[in-house]
Amino acid sequence: MEHDLKELINKCDLAIKKEDLDTLMNYYTDDAVLVVKPGMIARGKVEIKKAFIAIAEYFNNSIVPTQGEMTILEAGDTALVISQTLLAADKNDSEYSMDRRATYVFKKNSNGEWLCAIDNSYGTDLINK
Amino acid sequence: MEHDLKELINKCDLAIKKEDLDTLMNYYTDDAVLVVKPGMIARGKVEIKKAFIAIAEYFNNSIVPTQGEMTILEAGDTALVISQTLLAADKNDSEYSMDRRATYVFKKNSNGEWLCAIDNSYGTDLINK
Repeated sequence: MEHDLKELINKCDLAIKKEDLDTLMNYYTDDAVLVVKPGMIARGKVEIKKAFIAIAEYFNNSIVPTQGEMTILEAGDTALVISQTLLAADKNDSEYSMDRRATYVFKKNSNGEWLCAIDNSYGTDLINK
Repeated sequence: MEHDLKELINKCDLAIKKEDLDTLMNYYTDDAVLVVKPGMIARGKVEIKKAFIAIAEYFNNSIVPTQGEMTILEAGDTALVISQTLLAADKNDSEYSMDRRATYVFKKNSNGEWLCAIDNSYGTDLINK
């Protein structure tokens, strides 16, 4: 069986592809942060939803995220996912890589559901290389 | 003022340098995980302490970790720290880099104290490069 988190991330990717942002927001904690790009953070569901609308437009409403190799480090109700995140889109001149080594932090809520608390597709590229 | 987490990580680095592992264990959650090396995980304080004893011996009891550039992504009681972790030691033939881009996940406990839940100094190098 696939890890719950792998299935959840697949659901997130599908929601992004379909631009079903209300469904996507169900997978974030209320105080989640999204790294929109290095130096730009969206905080909370309202800002994160707005950021995904802007990201979709930036990629000509054609973005399709998928995950390659993935490692999940789980410590009780907290997990760090390290994942190769591949972005496909009808746009070839993005300022940032479309083949990323992402870091996602998930928390398990009192219902045993994993929710994304920190969404950083840039991984360690946020600091000097 | 420095971020609490930066000060805490400095305390961890000092405890590792002094091999004061009882103090170091105070900075981990009970169910913390440490990536000892890619493919090898220590889970819980007993295993993590043993791993640090082995790490100290591996580096001829001379290891001095310090942090360079650091970014802290904070979401409520959870934080992801992305940090340049530099390891100095009287040993120049380590199998792994001494200049790392690490990922550390911290959780705030009910006393408002940050504790390390996931200690992964290898960052995104756990997956293919």
